[in-house]
Amino acid sequence: MAKLVECIPNFSEGRDEKIINGLVETAKSVSGVTLLDHSSDASHNRSVFTLVGDEEGIQEAAFRLVKFASENIDMTKHTGEHPRMGATDVVPFVPIKDITAEECVEISKKVAKRINDELNIPIFLYEDSAQKPDRKNLARVRKGQFEGMPEKLKEEDWAPDFGERAIHPTAGITAVGARMPLVAFNVNLDTSDITIANNIAKIIRASGGGFKYCKGIGVMLEDRNIAQVSMNMVNFEGTPLYRAFETIRFEAKRYGVNIIGSEVIGLTPAKALVDVAEYYLQIEDFDYGKQVLENHLLN
Amino acid sequence: MAKLVECIPNFSEGRDEKIINGLVETAKSVSGVTLLDHSSDASHNRSVFTLVGDEEGIQEAAFRLVKFASENIDMTKHTGEHPRMGATDVVPFVPIKDITAEECVEISKKVAKRINDELNIPIFLYEDSAQKPDRKNLARVRKGQFEGMPEKLKEEDWAPDFGERAIHPTAGITAVGARMPLVAFNVNLDTSDITIANNIAKIIRASGGGFKYCKGIGVMLEDRNIAQVSMNMVNFEGTPLYRAFETIRFEAKRYGVNIIGSEVIGLTPAKALVDVAEYYLQIEDFDYGKQVLENHLLN
Repeated sequence: MAKLVECIPNFSEGRDEKIINGLVETAKSVSGVTLLDHSSDASHNRSVFTLVGDEEGIQEAAFRLVKFASENIDMTKHTGEHPRMGATDVVPFVPIKDITAEECVEISKKVAKRINDELNIPIFLYEDSAQKPDRKNLARVRKGQFEGMPEKLKEEDWAPDFGERAIHPTAGITAVGARMPLVAFNVNLDTSDITIANNIAKIIRASGGGFKYCKGIGVMLEDRNIAQVSMNMVNFEGTPLYRAFETIRFEAKRYGVNIIGSEVIGLTPAKALVDVAEYYLQIEDFDYGKQVLENHLLN
Repeated sequence: MAKLVECIPNFSEGRDEKIINGLVETAKSVSGVTLLDHSSDASHNRSVFTLVGDEEGIQEAAFRLVKFASENIDMTKHTGEHPRMGATDVVPFVPIKDITAEECVEISKKVAKRINDELNIPIFLYEDSAQKPDRKNLARVRKGQFEGMPEKLKEEDWAPDFGERAIHPTAGITAVGARMPLVAFNVNLDTSDITIANNIAKIIRASGGGFKYCKGIGVMLEDRNIAQVSMNMVNFEGTPLYRAFETIRFEAKRYGVNIIGSEVIGLTPAKALVDVAEYYLQIEDFDYGKQVLENHLLN
């Protein structure tokens, strides 16, 4: 069985169809790699690609994409709502099948080194690949954005992990790292009071003393006039979806509020939901790898 | 995306390693078909194989296995605890991916015809492929077993669907059909009173007025001294696992009994458990095919 790795590079271009099509062509150019999805946002001026492939193929595809982006996106002319620091802003690698988080860290470092060696773009290693604690968090790494990076790189703590203390003139700087699959999971409340969703989000997320692998904010669904706890479950094995869900349920009770539904946005690994079924059905000794039929069918 | 079909042929040989190995070799002889699992039971004198493959490959593999069994298993000499009527006793086809139950019925009929044409083994079409209502149920079709079949075939209602009213002298007769994936799902109760498990099994299964796609019996787990409701969920979309589970929960309450755990035995399609998660997390508008990552990775 081949090891399977997902890569979700983010590019600082969401408007120019020619460039986006070029990225699509590039993503499809490596055998053993499949482009699962790509989406572009004009106001963010940003595109997110989702690729999956074997250990070698995914590295080649990621490198080719970063190269294409560096040749076609000029950060000195970039505007958009989303924070960004490079033509390729961030390149996360995610373990999918028969591969460990540690192996994905190694992959991220190999790709990072090659990008710097061949394209002369400096690299911050982030998330699980971070070499310093304050580089785990992307928002912190990216603070200052493209325009502020020349100054930031001169600060004592902010030498790039690969490359000199200077950005690439047009491609900026790129964050590369390994992380666990992320599940976007939102829970809807039967209240129109956004402060309740905000309060629950605050206590459920790691930064508020909540679950280590949960990020959350309160959001108002204007069309339905209900408040939502919107979460990123950044490691569904460390913090399972059901645990966040049941905690929101009992915390909402304090306000006399109930859960009326939830949403999973975009892709999720099957295991994130099978783990939920295991909990509620109280299944004893379930072996996900062996007992789930589809696991025997993936290359 | 290729269509994927599972085939789980049962052979009336669980002791002779040479024959079992021959079946394994045969199962592996068709490209595009994977042998996921095989197990043999000496007291039953029976082997169960689990194969998966594309539409064409699975038909060829099933035929080759039936041919090998007919050349190597002599039913006139067969003994074993499990009811049986043929060297290949039963050949179910199960839709796994991008294929409908109806297409699997067509596949089953093609294989049935070929077995009869080339090997001169008569065939009963059963389950979803049954041409008469009383052939849906395998136990009913097999009643009389190998030894009683010559007489049974002469009865007005029991002409084979393919072939004459006479068994193959050594290979007997085979049941071929399409069915939904089956999930073996057992729920453990905190009681040592088997009559409670029996009572619940009776009301939960179709034959007792319960759920259409649920079969169930009470079983005593002697080593743990607890009673279990042991079920076959024969169509997890028609009767989802959570519905049986929650019904057992509220029926057990009548006896002051609680659920203490459950078991999934052997393989299950991921969807049977993802459906459970959807229910308990109250997920709105989940699209299994599009949102589950692995569905994009199967051939």
